[in-house]
Amino acid sequence: MKKAVVIGGGTGTFVVLSALKALADVDLTAIVTVADSGGSTGRLRDEFGFQPVGDLRQGLAALASGEKNWIRELLLYRFSKGQGLEGHNLGNLILTALQDMTGSTAKAVGIASKIFRLHGHIYPITTKSIQLVAEYRDGSVEIGEHIIDDSVKHGGDRIVSLKTSPRAKIYLPAAAAIKSADAIIIGPGDLYSSILPDLIIEGSVEAIKSFKGKFIYIMNLMTRYSQTHNMSANDHLKTVEVYSKRKADVVIVNSEKIPAAILSAYRKQHEYPVADDLAGDSRVMRLPLIKTTLVKQFPNDLVRRSYLRHDAEKLRRVLKGVI
Amino acid sequence: MKKAVVIGGGTGTFVVLSALKALADVDLTAIVTVADSGGSTGRLRDEFGFQPVGDLRQGLAALASGEKNWIRELLLYRFSKGQGLEGHNLGNLILTALQDMTGSTAKAVGIASKIFRLHGHIYPITTKSIQLVAEYRDGSVEIGEHIIDDSVKHGGDRIVSLKTSPRAKIYLPAAAAIKSADAIIIGPGDLYSSILPDLIIEGSVEAIKSFKGKFIYIMNLMTRYSQTHNMSANDHLKTVEVYSKRKADVVIVNSEKIPAAILSAYRKQHEYPVADDLAGDSRVMRLPLIKTTLVKQFPNDLVRRSYLRHDAEKLRRVLKGVI
Repeated sequence: MKKAVVIGGGTGTFVVLSALKALADVDLTAIVTVADSGGSTGRLRDEFGFQPVGDLRQGLAALASGEKNWIRELLLYRFSKGQGLEGHNLGNLILTALQDMTGSTAKAVGIASKIFRLHGHIYPITTKSIQLVAEYRDGSVEIGEHIIDDSVKHGGDRIVSLKTSPRAKIYLPAAAAIKSADAIIIGPGDLYSSILPDLIIEGSVEAIKSFKGKFIYIMNLMTRYSQTHNMSANDHLKTVEVYSKRKADVVIVNSEKIPAAILSAYRKQHEYPVADDLAGDSRVMRLPLIKTTLVKQFPNDLVRRSYLRHDAEKLRRVLKGVI
Repeated sequence: MKKAVVIGGGTGTFVVLSALKALADVDLTAIVTVADSGGSTGRLRDEFGFQPVGDLRQGLAALASGEKNWIRELLLYRFSKGQGLEGHNLGNLILTALQDMTGSTAKAVGIASKIFRLHGHIYPITTKSIQLVAEYRDGSVEIGEHIIDDSVKHGGDRIVSLKTSPRAKIYLPAAAAIKSADAIIIGPGDLYSSILPDLIIEGSVEAIKSFKGKFIYIMNLMTRYSQTHNMSANDHLKTVEVYSKRKADVVIVNSEKIPAAILSAYRKQHEYPVADDLAGDSRVMRLPLIKTTLVKQFPNDLVRRSYLRHDAEKLRRVLKGVI
């Protein structure tokens, strides 16, 4: 039984977890960011004052089992009407209720894991309520994940430092899982709002330092105008390595052509395929990895979703060989 | 294995189901009303247009198993804040999501039964969206369960006929469960908003007619000012027998003294213990049955809850012997 730890948040992590869940010989743990401040999560955070649950909900849904995926669909269900309900994910409401009942995000997730019979474990990276703080090249500072990810406000900008407010320590079970892992998989995902937010928590780098297994980075498919405009594959990799203070052992890069219709949808948002400038590096695995159908957008979405995703089945085959 | 069918809705049915769930040799089915129009349920009904789920949610919670009753608590959790969320039961939101996902209340309940690992079955009495229509002694007519149960508007009034709008047929699995039951338990519960609404559905009386087992009626503890003011135990029993066209084989009546503090709380609402005028009837079992602690009220309740309840453990002991 290999211990695999997936670090991240958002849709990218959801796909990686969905991919790995099907591997019988992998003991799977998800460690996710809790710095979200937009959409359904942001509203709940403002109104209830608990840690944001959006990334935890996606992790739960990915690891949920049984009943023809009804549990997964239930957790991801989004209300399309109802005063005050519209736009909320049911999974967020369930986690909010459990936070209120138990007084703790970690306990809430633990109970949800039992109720929904998870294949694996899921931990918040920290139990502290935090906001992201980004500093840009021109010295300006922003607080809040949803502002950092605002492409109108920050399209094309480059973040030079990311930290949390206040400082926050890693949740001990998350640190323990990292230290004893056989493999850590990081990415794909929004670099400054899903990936690095896990690495800037106090204790993350130390845990990764004591970890003896394979450090696997899955490269993003597209740049994100608000965060990673013009960043190449090497720029992405270097940034992750700088923040984690660890060199990746394996870098998984998509080599499949992205359909023109998808490229065109992204181009309108000033977003482009991440340019592969990793050339002759022996750590780099190039494989066809994309889901070639355009991901449906919902008119009532409170946040923008990515059109393009990694294909869980293709990822599974690659990761099975690597882990 | 005895087949027990509990017909009703609301808190009374919740207690009976909780009582029977613990009996290992009983195959339990709950058949509940779907005519609710007030509170969290009423808001969802108005906004989504699905059948009301409040009574189904209580049935699910009663029959939910495992995880130290976290599932039950989760289904009964009520949001105490959040714009548009305040006052909603999470169980209602879960059932609403499943109704939307499956396009059917019966399917929604079926899936929820699997997700939450029910001990038993639960069916809506009908799959049609209905409202209750009550006619009063003075000929006035009201439509809607929450108006019929409005003690300001109808305090002390007497309903002379109850029907549904539109006419609705019984859900076939509910009819099948009734026909093959070894025992039917009806009551306690609000006579005109939880009990009779099941009996006025087309096919209910026919199903009860073909049923060969024991017909058990559990008498209400208190009158309800909006519905059953001044009605004695015999009045209650006769009404149920008239609507079901079936004589009760067993009538279970509380003989325990109700604490003065509880009586006083009810008196303020013009509500009193149901007077036991069933005297020498051999069908009547008189036993101590009440929960002697006052049931907590919630400031954010959208509907009034009963202060006094039957005690599930005491009921269980009685029903074990009777079924």
